[in-house]
Order: sequence, then C-alpha cells, then structure tokens
Amino acid sequence: MDRLEALLGPRQELLHEIQALPIRWDRERFLFWLKQDYPFVEALYRYLVGLLSEAPQAHRPPLVHALLATVEELDWLLSQGASPGDPVHPVRRAYIALLEEMGGLPYPYRLVLFYFLNRLFLEAWNAHVQGEGPWQELSEHWSAPEFQAVLFDLEVLAQGLLSQLDPSLLQGYLLRILEMEKATWSLLL
Amino acid sequence: MDRLEALLGPRQELLHEIQALPIRWDRERFLFWLKQDYPFVEALYRYLVGLLSEAPQAHRPPLVHALLATVEELDWLLSQGASPGDPVHPVRRAYIALLEEMGGLPYPYRLVLFYFLNRLFLEAWNAHVQGEGPWQELSEHWSAPEFQAVLFDLEVLAQGLLSQLDPSLLQGYLLRILEMEKATWSLLL
Repeated sequence: MDRLEALLGPRQELLHEIQALPIRWDRERFLFWLKQDYPFVEALYRYLVGLLSEAPQAHRPPLVHALLATVEELDWLLSQGASPGDPVHPVRRAYIALLEEMGGLPYPYRLVLFYFLNRLFLEAWNAHVQGEGPWQELSEHWSAPEFQAVLFDLEVLAQGLLSQLDPSLLQGYLLRILEMEKATWSLLL
Repeated sequence: MDRLEALLGPRQELLHEIQALPIRWDRERFLFWLKQDYPFVEALYRYLVGLLSEAPQAHRPPLVHALLATVEELDWLLSQGASPGDPVHPVRRAYIALLEEMGGLPYPYRLVLFYFLNRLFLEAWNAHVQGEGPWQELSEHWSAPEFQAVLFDLEVLAQGLLSQLDPSLLQGYLLRILEMEKATWSLLL
C-alpha cells in the first residue's frame, strides 16, 4: 500500500515517539484511563454513522462491521464501569473536537482519515498494552481475523480514494491525529 | 407482547387479506419482482442509519445487526442482477415515499414502526414464498436464529416505548404500511 505509506511518511517519526513513550504500567490506572475513553468512542460512533449515511454500497460492509465493533466496545466499557455522564478530560475533549471537525470534511477524506485513525491507534496500543487484564478482551477483539479483515478492507477503500484527494490536507489531519494520540497516551506517563 | 398485538388489532384483517392474495407463483416473475425491490431496501438502509444516529446505546446492537442484514440483502440483490439505476415502479416509489415520511417522525415512533415493518413483511413473505429458488438464501437468512434474535430484541424495545406514544398515530401508519404491502404483493397477481 505505497501511497498510504508515502502519505504517512514524515509523520512516522511521531508515531515512533508515541510508541516509545515510557508510560508507567499500572493495571488500575490503565483501566481507569480506558474507561474514560467512553465519550471518545461515542464520538467515533457518531463519526461512523455519518460515514454510513453517505457510503456507497461497496463501502458499507466494512463500515457496518466497524460500527458493530464500536457498539460492542461501548458495551464493554460500560460493563467495566464507564459512566457516560462523567466530566470529560480536556485531552479527550480536544480529540473529540478534532473528530467532530473531521466529520465536516467531504466523504472521501473522512473515510481515509477513519482508516488512519484506527491504524495509528492500534499501532500505539500494540506497542504499549501487554500483560493480562480485562482489556485483553479488547486486544483479542482487534487482533481477531474478522476485525483484521475490516481493517484490510478499509485500507483497500482508502487506497482507492487517495488519488482524488489533496495530500497536504490529509497530512495536516494526520499530524493532528498523532498529536492527539500522543497527548492521550501521555496521560499514562 | 399484548400491547403491540392490541395496536395491530383491527389491522390484522388486512394482513390476512395480504396473506390470502392469490398470487401467481412463477419463479422468473418473482425474482424480477424481488430485484425491483432494490430501491426500497436502499430506502430502508437510509431509514436505519437515521435511527442509528439517534439510538441510545441499549438500542444499537439490534439496529446495527438489522443494518448489516440490509447491506447483505442489497449485495444479494445486486448479485442477482438488480440495477440500482433502473426506473422505479410507482408502487415501490409510493412505499419509499411513505418510508421517507416516517423518517421525519420522532425516534420512538420510527423505532416501533421499523419493528412492525419487518414483522408485517415477514408474515406476508412466509405466507407466499415457498419452494426452491435463489430467494431461499433470503428466507434462510431471515429465519436464522441470529435474525430472529434481532427481531425479538426490536420487539422488546418497541414494547418498552409504546406507553409514551399516541396509538392512533401509530395505527394510521400501520394501516398505510399494510396498504403498501398489499399493493406490492398485488404486483404478483
């Protein structure tokens, strides 16, 4: 997937920085941080519903599967004690605001950025999250062949749209996504 | 599910009329009729995305599964040769217009009517469609335990909302849905 890689190119460094953050690994603290993710996953749900309202038929299967994964993740967070009404941390609030801003972009941009959002988050997750704990369910969910297939399909769709898009606009948002990921993971320093 | 039955009460007769329509069973004609259903299923997809944009978390799992079923049905219709660009039969167009009108109702009405729409269609389908043919895949899909579970969940959600709603408004729409079902099945007379 050359074009997608090229787009990410200079921003790879920031991803490596995130992956190398010396976070302090503590089960309870990590679970608390994860539960606080509820409003962000809710914003991701709304972003996906927005995508589905414009998606052509060929794009819908992976997007509906991604929506299902989001709904299941919200249920999982609730089962772990997340409280939807809790005040939202400013760092999460800023990431939600970015997502809402991206929700106003034309459909092809939103789809490509949704692909990157998933990919970059999972690359950071895989670098930081190991060991046993209730979050293993999430890790297993994301590494399951079904979800990997969804990501692969999204990658193919994103690849197909890329030639019509302005790379500098995309790169601007990629940078901001990575900055938000860095700020979010840095809550665990 | 007493309240839902009571709501349907006087309209059961029209359902029985639909179920007793002496349709002329012909494989090719039926498949043609089914393929012409594409724009209606597309409208149902949009109706569902509208529901999902307002659904509370507890309502989302069955609605996302219903959305997935709709996307798979569209794929199936395409695989059978449905052409999304074809002119739409006036009877189907009227049903789509009803769906779009219903899409403007408050969320609880839309959810209850979505439940009935599925139920009434399937009751008509089960009365009319037998025998072998490519549509068996659809029949098997709808009678599979997973889809029956979705319908059951929708029934429970609908039941829970009913006490807040105006029964005469719902009954007006139920009558119109049944009239549309009758007109649609009558294309096969």
